[in-house]
Amino acid sequence: MWKDLLENVRKRAPRIHCISNYVSMNDCANILLACGASPIMAMDEAETAQITSICDGLTINIGTLSRATIPAMLASGKRANELGIPVVLDPVGTGASDFRTESAVRLLEKIRFTAIRGNASELRALSAASADALEPRTRSERKERTEGRSEICPGTAEDSCASGVDVSALDRVTEDNLDHWLSFVKDFAGRTGAVIALAGSTDLVADEDTALVIRNGHPMMSRVTGTGCQLSALTAAFLAANQTPLKGAEENHNYPVQVSSRSLLPVAAAICAMGVCGERAQKRLTGLDGNATYRNYIIDAVYHLTPEELETEAKYEMR
Amino acid sequence: MWKDLLENVRKRAPRIHCISNYVSMNDCANILLACGASPIMAMDEAETAQITSICDGLTINIGTLSRATIPAMLASGKRANELGIPVVLDPVGTGASDFRTESAVRLLEKIRFTAIRGNASELRALSAASADALEPRTRSERKERTEGRSEICPGTAEDSCASGVDVSALDRVTEDNLDHWLSFVKDFAGRTGAVIALAGSTDLVADEDTALVIRNGHPMMSRVTGTGCQLSALTAAFLAANQTPLKGAEENHNYPVQVSSRSLLPVAAAICAMGVCGERAQKRLTGLDGNATYRNYIIDAVYHLTPEELETEAKYEMR
Amino acid sequence: MWKDLLENVRKRAPRIHCISNYVSMNDCANILLACGASPIMAMDEAETAQITSICDGLTINIGTLSRATIPAMLASGKRANELGIPVVLDPVGTGASDFRTESAVRLLEKIRFTAIRGNASELRALSAASADALEPRTRSERKERTEGRSEICPGTAEDSCASGVDVSALDRVTEDNLDHWLSFVKDFAGRTGAVIALAGSTDLVADEDTALVIRNGHPMMSRVTGTGCQLSALTAAFLAANQTPLKGAEENHNYPVQVSSRSLLPVAAAICAMGVCGERAQKRLTGLDGNATYRNYIIDAVYHLTPEELETEAKYEMR
Repeated sequence: MWKDLLENVRKRAPRIHCISNYVSMNDCANILLACGASPIMAMDEAETAQITSICDGLTINIGTLSRATIPAMLASGKRANELGIPVVLDPVGTGASDFRTESAVRLLEKIRFTAIRGNASELRALSAASADALEPRTRSERKERTEGRSEICPGTAEDSCASGVDVSALDRVTEDNLDHWLSFVKDFAGRTGAVIALAGSTDLVADEDTALVIRNGHPMMSRVTGTGCQLSALTAAFLAANQTPLKGAEENHNYPVQVSSRSLLPVAAAICAMGVCGERAQKRLTGLDGNATYRNYIIDAVYHLTPEELETEAKYEMR
Repeated sequence: MWKDLLENVRKRAPRIHCISNYVSMNDCANILLACGASPIMAMDEAETAQITSICDGLTINIGTLSRATIPAMLASGKRANELGIPVVLDPVGTGASDFRTESAVRLLEKIRFTAIRGNASELRALSAASADALEPRTRSERKERTEGRSEICPGTAEDSCASGVDVSALDRVTEDNLDHWLSFVKDFAGRTGAVIALAGSTDLVADEDTALVIRNGHPMMSRVTGTGCQLSALTAAFLAANQTPLKGAEENHNYPVQVSSRSLLPVAAAICAMGVCGERAQKRLTGLDGNATYRNYIIDAVYHLTPEELETEAKYEMR
Repeated sequence: MWKDLLENVRKRAPRIHCISNYVSMNDCANILLACGASPIMAMDEAETAQITSICDGLTINIGTLSRATIPAMLASGKRANELGIPVVLDPVGTGASDFRTESAVRLLEKIRFTAIRGNASELRALSAASADALEPRTRSERKERTEGRSEICPGTAEDSCASGVDVSALDRVTEDNLDHWLSFVKDFAGRTGAVIALAGSTDLVADEDTALVIRNGHPMMSRVTGTGCQLSALTAAFLAANQTPLKGAEENHNYPVQVSSRSLLPVAAAICAMGVCGERAQKRLTGLDGNATYRNYIIDAVYHLTPEELETEAKYEMR
C-alpha cells in the first residue's frame, strides 16, 4: 500500500511551506527536493499566511523558536486550516523550557494539526501541558492516560522527564512498555484530532482508532542533526500529495484506503520511507564515513527510493 | 575571455558581504571560499553598513526575508553605492507574496544594483511591480515590454504567474520564446542600469545593449536547494574581482574588455562557472549519489575549476 | 594525557547549549554529535537561561550577531556562571564593526568565560577594546602588552588591523613572532581569567601561567566555513565532560592533571582533536574532492577519532 503514496509525491510534486528551525532548514529543503516536492521557507508574519495559501502543505517546527516567529506560525496554521491543506507540527524541545512548552500548547489550541511528530519526551510533555486545553472525553480515558504516564516515569515529576531535544532515558520506547505508548499515542490522537507520530528506535503512529508500529531506521540516524525535522517536512509532503486533491489537479486520485485513513497512512509512509532510507544509506558507509557523510547519504537515498523499494522494505504491523 | 575573469577572483580574493537567507547561508560561504573569495555574513542594521565598507562586494538575497532585515539591506546597499563596490540582488520569491514583491521594489528604488539575478518568474514579477518606479524611457519600449509579457503568459493575470520560489511553468524559457525573454532582460537592464541574469535551463544575461545566451549547467541543479543563491554570491565575487580595482590593490588590472562590459562579462563568467561546475559535478555522481552528494560536488568543482577549463567549457553565444 | 579527555566526552555525553551563528549552526550540531555530545540550539531570551540550566556547557558565538540575541547571550552566560558550568566565547569578527567589538566587550564584562577562542585579529581587537574594562594588574604588564602589539602591527592604528572574520595578514602567527603572541595570550588569560585559544596555522592556548603551542591541522581547513565555530562547540564539550562532575554523575572522575589545569587541558585537547581530524580528513581527499567534501570528512573524522589516535597524533609543546 505504500507504493502509491510515494508515487503520488513524485508525480504531484507538492509545494511545502516550511516554518522551520535554522539548524536543519537546508536539510529540510534538500530532502523535500529529494522526494520530488518543492520547498518554500518563509517565516515573517508579514507574508507567511500568503505563502501558505500558494502551497499544498505546511510544516511548523519550533526547534529554534523565537517570540517573533510565533505569530507567523499562527497566521500560517490558521490559513492552512481555512484552505484545508495539511499542517504538521514538530514540537522540538517541548518540555525543555516553559517557553517552548507554552508556545507548543498555544499552537495546539489555535491550529488543527493533521499530524504531530516528535519523540516520546516531547509528545508526553505536550500532552501533559495541553491536558487542560484538550479535555479527555471520559473520566476513564483520563485515568488510563495518567496511569500510562506514571508507569513510564515512575517516581518522577512529569516535567523532570523532559530534557532537551533528545528523548529522556525514562521515555525510551521498548517492547516492554510498547502497549503503554500505543495507548498514549491513540489517546493523544483522539484528543487532538491529529495523527500522532512518536519517533524512537521503534516508531509509533496512530490516529484515534488505529496504530502502526514501524521498525525501520538505524540507530546512527540519531547522530545526525535534524533527521527528525527532515521527517516532519517529508510527512507534510506525503500528506499534501495524498490527502487532498492538489489545487489545480485535474483528476481526483483513487485512494487505495478508506477516508478515515487518509492522514494515517501518508504519515506512516513518510516514516517508513525515512527509515528505509536510513537503512539504505547506512549500508553505503565505508570505514571512514561518519555522521556527516551519513547525513548526505540519507538524503541521497530519498532521492533514489522507488515506490517498489518502499513497498518491499517497509517493516510495520497494525496494532 | 573567461579565463582572466576567474583568475582575478583566485588572485584578488575579494571579500564579499552576504546578506543572505538562512537556508543557503552555509553553502554561499563555502562556494565563496571555493572560488577563492572570502565571505562575511552580517545582517543586523547595527553593523551592516560598516561591514560593507570593509568588503569588496555585496550580495542581497531575500530568500527568508524579515522586516527587521530590510533596513540592514538598505543601509548596506547605500554604503556600497557610495563606495562604488558592486551589489547583486537575488530577489528570491518575488511575486510569491506582496511582502516580498514590495520589499524587492523598495530595494530596487533605493539601491543601484550592479546585477540582478533570478528566475523568469521572479524577474518578471519584479519588473512588473517596479514599472511605475522605473519608467521606461520611450512609449515604444513600454509597448514592446508589455507585449512580450502578455505573449508569455497568455490569458493570465501577471501576478498569477509568479508562484513561489520556483519558476512557473508559464515562465519557462524555451527556444521558441527566447527572443521575447532576450528583449525582456535587455529592457529590464535598461530600466534598472543593472546587468540582468535570468536563470533557467538556458541562462540569459544582458545589459541594455548586449545579451548572452549561456547553455551550461545540468537539470539536476534545480534539485539542490540554494544553487541560485550560491550563484548570486559567486556573481558578487566575480564582479568585485573584475570590475573595480580592489581597495589596496597596488596596480590596476588591465581589463581585456571595454569599460561598458565590465559588469556584463563578470556576471556571465560567474554563470558559466556555476554551469560548468554543475556539469563536472554531475559526471562524478555514481548510482547511489543523489542531490545531497551533488550539492557537495558542485562546490568541490568550483574549488578545483581552473581558468583554462572555464575558458574551454563555457558554452555561450552573443545575441 | 589527551586520551582520557576525549574518552570522557564519549562516555559522559555532555549536553551543550549553543547560541550560535546561522552559517555554521548545522555543522556545530553535527560535530557535537560526532564527538558524542548532545547539542541544543536556543537563542530567544524567553528561554535561553532555562535551556542553559539543563545543559552541561554553553558556547556563545557572535558570527551573525543581532541586537535581539545579546540579552539572550547575557542571560545564558549569567546562568552558566551561577551553575558553575563552562562557557566558551567565540568572538567572530570582533574588530570588524563597532557593534561586534562593543557587544563582545559587553559579554566579557558580564560573563566569566572559561575559554575564549578566536583568531589573532579577533583576540587582539577584543583585548584592546576591553583594556579599560579589564585593567591589567601592574604597570609593567600593561607596558609589555602594548609593546607586543605595536611590534606586530608596526605603524598601523590597531583597529585597522582587524579586518573581518579572517585574520589580518599583519596578525599572522609565525615562528618569528611566536614569543610575542605567547605573552599576549598569557596576559589576556590573566586579565580575563579565561583560557585563551588563538587559532592560526600554529595554535596557541594558554592560561595565566602555562601556554601550549599546538601544531596540528591543515591549511585547507581555512577554506571550510565554520571550522572555527565547530571547534568552539567542541571546546565546550571537552570542558563540560572534563572540568566539573556532570550533573547526576555518580562518581567524580579522577583527573590526571592538577586543578589549575582543569580548563587549559580540555581546551587544548579540543584543539588537538580538531587539528588531528583536519589532517586525517585531508588524507581521505581524492583529486576531485574540494572544500565541501572536506567539510564532511572533518566531521566524519571526529566521529571515528579514538582516544588512542588523539594521544599519538597530537603535536604540542609546553611553553
